[in-house]
Amino acid sequence: MPKGYNGRILRVDLTSGQMQAEEPGEVLYRTYLGGGGLASYYLLRELGPGVDPLSPENILIFASNVISGAPIAGMTRFTVAAKSPLTGAYGEAEAGGFWGPELKFAGFDALIITGKAPKPCYLWIKDGVAQIRPAETIWGLETGPAQEAIQSELGEKRARIALIGPAGENRVRYACVVNELKHVNGRTGMGAVMGSKNLKAIAVRGTQKLALHDPEKLRELSRNLAELIARHGPNKVLRKLGTSNLIVPLNNQGILPTRNFRTGFFASAEKISGEQMAETILKGDESCYACAVRCKRAVRVSSGPYATSEKYGGPEYETLGSLGSLLCIDDLEAISKGNELCNRYTLDTISTGVAIGFAMECFEAGLLGPADTEGIDFRFGNPEAMLKGIEWIAYRKPGLGDLLADGVKIAAAKIGGGSEAFALHIKGQELPMHDPRGKIGVGLSYALSPTGADHVRAPHDTPFQAPGPNLERIAPLGILEPVPARETGPRKARNFTYLQFVWSLYESLGVCNFVAGPVWALTLTDLVEVVQAITGWETSLWELLKVGERAVTMARVFNLREGFGRKDDTLPDRLFAPLESGALKGVGIDRREFEDLLTLYYEAMGWDPRDGVPTRGKLAELNLFWLDDFVKAKRSKDTPQVGAT
Amino acid sequence: MPKGYNGRILRVDLTSGQMQAEEPGEVLYRTYLGGGGLASYYLLRELGPGVDPLSPENILIFASNVISGAPIAGMTRFTVAAKSPLTGAYGEAEAGGFWGPELKFAGFDALIITGKAPKPCYLWIKDGVAQIRPAETIWGLETGPAQEAIQSELGEKRARIALIGPAGENRVRYACVVNELKHVNGRTGMGAVMGSKNLKAIAVRGTQKLALHDPEKLRELSRNLAELIARHGPNKVLRKLGTSNLIVPLNNQGILPTRNFRTGFFASAEKISGEQMAETILKGDESCYACAVRCKRAVRVSSGPYATSEKYGGPEYETLGSLGSLLCIDDLEAISKGNELCNRYTLDTISTGVAIGFAMECFEAGLLGPADTEGIDFRFGNPEAMLKGIEWIAYRKPGLGDLLADGVKIAAAKIGGGSEAFALHIKGQELPMHDPRGKIGVGLSYALSPTGADHVRAPHDTPFQAPGPNLERIAPLGILEPVPARETGPRKARNFTYLQFVWSLYESLGVCNFVAGPVWALTLTDLVEVVQAITGWETSLWELLKVGERAVTMARVFNLREGFGRKDDTLPDRLFAPLESGALKGVGIDRREFEDLLTLYYEAMGWDPRDGVPTRGKLAELNLFWLDDFVKAKRSKDTPQVGAT
Repeated sequence: MPKGYNGRILRVDLTSGQMQAEEPGEVLYRTYLGGGGLASYYLLRELGPGVDPLSPENILIFASNVISGAPIAGMTRFTVAAKSPLTGAYGEAEAGGFWGPELKFAGFDALIITGKAPKPCYLWIKDGVAQIRPAETIWGLETGPAQEAIQSELGEKRARIALIGPAGENRVRYACVVNELKHVNGRTGMGAVMGSKNLKAIAVRGTQKLALHDPEKLRELSRNLAELIARHGPNKVLRKLGTSNLIVPLNNQGILPTRNFRTGFFASAEKISGEQMAETILKGDESCYACAVRCKRAVRVSSGPYATSEKYGGPEYETLGSLGSLLCIDDLEAISKGNELCNRYTLDTISTGVAIGFAMECFEAGLLGPADTEGIDFRFGNPEAMLKGIEWIAYRKPGLGDLLADGVKIAAAKIGGGSEAFALHIKGQELPMHDPRGKIGVGLSYALSPTGADHVRAPHDTPFQAPGPNLERIAPLGILEPVPARETGPRKARNFTYLQFVWSLYESLGVCNFVAGPVWALTLTDLVEVVQAITGWETSLWELLKVGERAVTMARVFNLREGFGRKDDTLPDRLFAPLESGALKGVGIDRREFEDLLTLYYEAMGWDPRDGVPTRGKLAELNLFWLDDFVKAKRSKDTPQVGAT
Repeated sequence: MPKGYNGRILRVDLTSGQMQAEEPGEVLYRTYLGGGGLASYYLLRELGPGVDPLSPENILIFASNVISGAPIAGMTRFTVAAKSPLTGAYGEAEAGGFWGPELKFAGFDALIITGKAPKPCYLWIKDGVAQIRPAETIWGLETGPAQEAIQSELGEKRARIALIGPAGENRVRYACVVNELKHVNGRTGMGAVMGSKNLKAIAVRGTQKLALHDPEKLRELSRNLAELIARHGPNKVLRKLGTSNLIVPLNNQGILPTRNFRTGFFASAEKISGEQMAETILKGDESCYACAVRCKRAVRVSSGPYATSEKYGGPEYETLGSLGSLLCIDDLEAISKGNELCNRYTLDTISTGVAIGFAMECFEAGLLGPADTEGIDFRFGNPEAMLKGIEWIAYRKPGLGDLLADGVKIAAAKIGGGSEAFALHIKGQELPMHDPRGKIGVGLSYALSPTGADHVRAPHDTPFQAPGPNLERIAPLGILEPVPARETGPRKARNFTYLQFVWSLYESLGVCNFVAGPVWALTLTDLVEVVQAITGWETSLWELLKVGERAVTMARVFNLREGFGRKDDTLPDRLFAPLESGALKGVGIDRREFEDLLTLYYEAMGWDPRDGVPTRGKLAELNLFWLDDFVKAKRSKDTPQVGAT
C-alpha cells in the first residue's frame, strides 16, 4: 500500500473525562473514508443494540474525512452521527462551513464521544491538544451568546464552534447542531444527543496543514474547478439565488409542498422565492471553506416584528418550504425570522416546520383548539403561530411545545383521533420539502433512507430526464438513457441504486452535492482525481462507489439490529393519495408499483426482499463480513442457505 | 451521448446465402463493448434454448470490439461464440493475432452466422464487401495447405484467415478455430460448429483505419505502454520465455498437473520448461497486432520423427502441460510435434491432452487394452501414444479416436467401469493445466465458468498473496489486503468476484491479460483511459467492470435456460482428494469450504444460492431486465418475492 494517508481519531469519554488519540491505519481510512462511512463503522463496532439514544450509552461521533481541509471547493462537510432520538434508528447529519476542515487542521479526523459529563461542559481542541472545560455559565444560552462567551473565554476569536442552543439542551428530538451560527447538521436530532451528554459545544482551532500527496496536481484541479464553477450554468444560478432558486420551478411543476403536503401548488410562491429574497432582504452570499459556489444566503430584516440578524445566515430552500409554503405562509420576513430562531435555539427547520404544519392541520380539524395554543389562531397561513410554535418547541413549553418537541410520530400517537394522517414522517423523521409524487426517485430515497425521510441520501431524478449534459455526467455510472422522473420499474430502480451510491460516497467524503457529481461542476471522474491527488491512492470510481454502497449497507444493518425492516420502508399514506391542486393535481403514487420498486431495490442491493437483510455473500463482497454475526439472527429461517455452513 | 462510436455488424445466413449489415447504435456498443459481452447478448436474443449445437439452428458469432484495431499493444483479441457442442452450455473462446483487427479494418465489429451452407464454403470479407465462396476443393485440407489455397485463390497474400482443419470438419467436440496457423480460439469446440455449418474459413482484409476520438492521447498512451512493457519485470519474463516460464515454478509449488492430475509434481519438469525450449528448439518470439510483449513462441525441429515447422508457432504453457507433464511425457520435441499436429488439425490442445490422459489412465487400469490402441502401449510417458492419439481423434478414427473425439465426459460414460473418476472435466469441458488444490480461486473459476473448466475466466490468486506491486495494482478494485492462495472464506469470495469482472471485461474488450490489469504493464486505470481515448466516452472503471459483470450474468442466464444449475458448478472428485506427491503432497480441497465459497459467490452476484438464478433486482441493476422473462420460469416457487408483481 502506498503510504498515502494516516490520520488520528480522538476518543473522549465524558463520564470519566478521559481522552485518547488513536491511529486506525491506512486500510481502514481507505475502506471507509470518513463521514458516514467511518461513523457507521464505529457505531456498529461499539454501540450495542437497544440503547436509549438519550442515555449516556449512546455514542456521538463527529467525523471529517480523508480529503476535507485540502484547498479545493466543495469538500468541507463533516458528519455528526449517533443513534437517533427522533427515530431510534441510525442518525446522521452533515454540515458545511469551516468547522470540519478546522478539526483536521487541529490534528483529528474524527471524535468518538462516549458517556455523559457530570456537569455541562464543552470540548476545546487546539493543534492536537484536547480539553474538557466547564460550561455551567454558558448552558442555557442561545447559540449566538454561547459562541461569543466561549470565544471570549478561550481568547480565541478564530475558534470554530459547533454547538447547541436551548432545543438541544432540552432534548428536542430534532434538535440540530450549528457551527458558526448558520451551518447546520440538521436532521435526526444530533443536538439532543449532545444535550443528553451535557456537551454544549466543541470548539476547534488548528494550524496544521493537510499533507497532500501531489500538491501541484491538486492546485491544478482546484484552479480548474474554480474556473468551471464560475462558468457552469447550474452553479451560477446557485450563486445568484441560493437553493431558494427552486421555489418557482418546483411550484410550476406542482411539487412545492404546501398545506402539509395536501398540494404541491402554493399560489403565493413568488413571494417567498429566491428572486424575491434577492430583491429585498438579501444581505450577501456566503460560502464554506475554499468554496467558489457561494450558495449560502445571509439576510437581514432591519426592523419590525421580524427583525433578523444576518449572522444567523438565511433560509435555504428547505426552510422556505417548511416554514413557508408548507404552512401557507407567504411572508418572507417572517420565514427569515423563523429561520433565525431555529438557528438560535438549534432546531432542525424541516422537522420544526412539519411539526407546526401537523399542529395546524390538527387545529383546523378540531383536534387542537385555542386552549392548546394560548388563543393563537393556529390555522395555515398565520406567521405568529409559526414563530410561537418554534419558541414553544425549543423550550418544550408544557402542552403543545412539549408535544411537538418529540416529533409528529409521537405527537400523533398522543393526540390520536385520526391525526396520524397529518403526521408526515417516515421512521419518525419529518418529510423534507420535495414531493415524491412528482419524482419517484425521491420517494425511494425517503422510504429507504436509514435516517428516515431525508432528501440528501440520494439525488432527485428530475435532472436526468432528458438527453443532455446532465445525462452525460452520469454516463460513467453506465446510465446511458434518460428515465422520466415519474417512471417506475427496473430502470428507475437501477438509477436510484447507483445514484444512491454516489450520494453515500459524498457523505463519506464530505463532498457537497452542489459542487461535485451529476449536475454540478466537478464530474465523477474529476472527483476520483481529487482523492488521488490528496491521498496518493491510485483509486477508481469503482472503489469509491463501493465505499458508498458499503456505508448504505452498514446503516441498514444498524437499523436491522434496532428492529427496523421492510414495514418501515414506506411513505406516509398522503403521498399515495392525489395532489389537490397544481400541475400534478390528481396525481398520487401507485402503491403496488412502489412496492415492486422496493423489491427490485432490495434485490439489486443483495438484500433479502422480505426485510432487506443483506446476504452473507453481499457482506463478503463489500468487505463487511465482520457484520455477519450481527445479521445472522435477522435472517429468516427459511432463507435459502444451500451449502452454507 | 457523445457520438463517439458506431460500428457495423454483418449477418450471414449460410442456408440462404443472404447477408446484411446493420448498425446497432452507440448505446448497445457502450453497454456490451464487444467480444463475450456482445456475443452473449445476440445469443440470448436470437438462439432459443434446447438447440442441437451441431445443427444449423446454432448461431456462430465472431466478435471483435470497440477498441481492437487501435495502434496499441494487447487489445487485439476476438471472440468466437456459439452454443458449445462439448458442453451444451455457453461456448466462447478468444484468440489473438491479427485477424480481429483486420475484421475491423474490413469494416465490421462482428459477424453473426446462422444456418448451414449446402456445400463447403468460406467467407471472404474485404473492405466492407462480403462474399460466400465455394470451398469444396479446400475441404479436407489441413490448416496450412487450406490457408495457402485460399490466399492463392483470392490473390491476397495478406488476407488474414481463421479456419478449421479436419478436426473441425469431423466435428470433434473440442475442435478449435485457428488463425494464421498459430493463434487459436481454443476451447468449447467452436471449430466443430464451423464444421457443422460447412464453413471452412473466414478470410478478411481491410484498409480502413479505426476512427480514434483522441489520436494524440492514444499515441501517448501507446508509447508509454510500449516503454512500460520493455521494462516491466513480468512482461520481460514473458518475452524471454513465453508462457512456458510457468513450468518450473508451478512444479516447485507442487501444482504442475501430472499423471492426469494425480500429482502436481513432474520429476522431469525442467526438460519441458521454457528455459529448455529457449536453449534448444526456439526459433523466435512472435507477437499479435501492435504488441510489444512478444510472448508467443515459434519452434522448429529440423529432423527426426518429431520434425516440426515454426509456421505453426510453438507450444504454450497449457500445451506443455497437457501434452507433457499431464501425460508424463518429457520429450520437448514430441510435445512440439503434438502442438503442430493440433494446429494443423484444429484440435484444442488442452482437451486433447486431457482426453489422451484419460485414455492412458484407462489403459493402465485395464479398461482399455492393446486391441483398442492398435497395439500401442498407451501408458503414461509414451510420446507415440500421444501423437497417434491426436491423429485418431482429429479423424475420428473408429474406436478410440471416435470415442475420445466426444470428450472425456461422453467417453467415460461409454467405457464405464469407474472410468468416470479419470475423466477430468467440468460441465463436459476438460481441465486446463492449473491445479486448484494450490490456488482456490482457480477452483472457483473452473467450477463457475459458464464454458466449463476454463482458465481464462478469472485470474489465479497466486500473484496477490503478498503486499507489493501486484497488490497495489488491484487496489483500485478496493482489494487492499493480500489473501493467501489457499485461503477459503469471504475474502476469497470477494476477490474472486471482483477479479472475475475484470477478466470478463477483458473478454468483452479483446484485452490480453498479459498486457493489462493486475499483474502486467497496463493498469486498470490506464485501460479506462485507453477506452476513453479511442471511443470518446467519459467512462470509468465502474462502468467497465459493470460490463464485465453483465457478461458473466448473461452467460449464466444462457446456461440456466439450457438446464444447468448449481449441481454443475463443481470440481471433479479428484481435486477434493489429496495430491500424491510434490510440495503439496496430501493436500486436497475441502468440499464443505468449497461449497460455502460457492454460496457466498452466488449471493455476492445477486443470484439465488440454490441454483444461481439472478434476482429480478440484479437484472434491473445490470440493465438486463429484458432477460426477466427468460429467468422467470427458473425461479423456484418458494423464492421470496414479497411485494413483487
